[in-house]
Amino acid sequence: MKTARTQVKRVPKRGHYDLETVYSILDAGLICHVGFATEGQPFVIPTAYGRLDNRLFIHGAAASRMLRSLQQGIEVCVTVTLLDGLVLARSAMHHSMNYRSVVMFGTAELVSEREEKLKALYAFTEHVMAGRWAETREPNEQELQATTVLALPIDEASAKIRTGPPVDDAADYELPHWAGVIPLRMQAGEPIVDPKLAAGIAVPEQVERYLEIGRG
Amino acid sequence: MKTARTQVKRVPKRGHYDLETVYSILDAGLICHVGFATEGQPFVIPTAYGRLDNRLFIHGAAASRMLRSLQQGIEVCVTVTLLDGLVLARSAMHHSMNYRSVVMFGTAELVSEREEKLKALYAFTEHVMAGRWAETREPNEQELQATTVLALPIDEASAKIRTGPPVDDAADYELPHWAGVIPLRMQAGEPIVDPKLAAGIAVPEQVERYLEIGRG
Repeated sequence: MKTARTQVKRVPKRGHYDLETVYSILDAGLICHVGFATEGQPFVIPTAYGRLDNRLFIHGAAASRMLRSLQQGIEVCVTVTLLDGLVLARSAMHHSMNYRSVVMFGTAELVSEREEKLKALYAFTEHVMAGRWAETREPNEQELQATTVLALPIDEASAKIRTGPPVDDAADYELPHWAGVIPLRMQAGEPIVDPKLAAGIAVPEQVERYLEIGRG
Repeated sequence: MKTARTQVKRVPKRGHYDLETVYSILDAGLICHVGFATEGQPFVIPTAYGRLDNRLFIHGAAASRMLRSLQQGIEVCVTVTLLDGLVLARSAMHHSMNYRSVVMFGTAELVSEREEKLKALYAFTEHVMAGRWAETREPNEQELQATTVLALPIDEASAKIRTGPPVDDAADYELPHWAGVIPLRMQAGEPIVDPKLAAGIAVPEQVERYLEIGRG
């Protein structure tokens, strides 16, 4: 996992290379940022994802520029970042953020086999909300064909985590400035029912529960 | 603003090219994902940022790999994504997210002039929390020299926004599945005081207020 590309160079003590840590961050996130370059021009595209075992899946319309580029086997970098807090120091320069992030490198593989594609779309839907797949219409043949699914093996990934209070210069601890952390988390609000929802359909349990458990 | 690179190709109605929209998303975000490529290898690095007028600033230690690469004038893509909700459709394939994102292209410029660098660091600190600069120790000469600040002109940027309920296939509206949106927002928690805070320092007003106004 620790390779020349993934080694955390700035503040090495924040680096983590075990799969358990990497998976926990990937499973807590909702969107990833996919980076690739064509002819030296970098693109960073936010997109949803799913994970099954040691593979991360992204998907989209077959016509998508990103998916067409990645299918050619070019190098890709996928980053997931969870923001956990504002770190307010006594000095302007020591302001920081608490966060958990994963940076992954590799080349994406086209998932073309029908059963494998369905499994990836299952992982994708369950990643949005656990238990959701059973509450929806599954993809039909036309949808399966119109959708491109790519898998990126989680072979070369590193996590970076910052936690805790600000770290100021020794002399600054006597300054009269307040210092501390403002915790941040992704908070769910009350579900907004689709105005076109047919009568008599109750809010599913996992949607109700989402308000309490939140995310991340 | 609408160029070959920035034009939103998938779901064009979600594309926005006016500066007001772009600025409002940049100002609401806390971290950006910076993409660049060296020898075909893409990197996507999460980092904090600031904005002043038509420039976005990132900064870091002069030794940072990212900043050293970007200083060479290579192409960069900076993306800011705000997640606004889970879009739960009746069909698995129409699940989506509500979001606001900005994708910017260009080449970064080194900010080396002292006053300009200070202004950028002011923008940076105020971006973390409005009013914070006045409550902190300003950067000293040593810090100014050890910090690299880069500016990216916001000349080639586009925003992409999805709002509203799920959009299902016409035939699916009769299915017995619940559909709707779970709103998501970055929520601040109670400030955690630095254990090393000197006695008698009150929580500043803007820190107190952050709990109410939140972010984004």
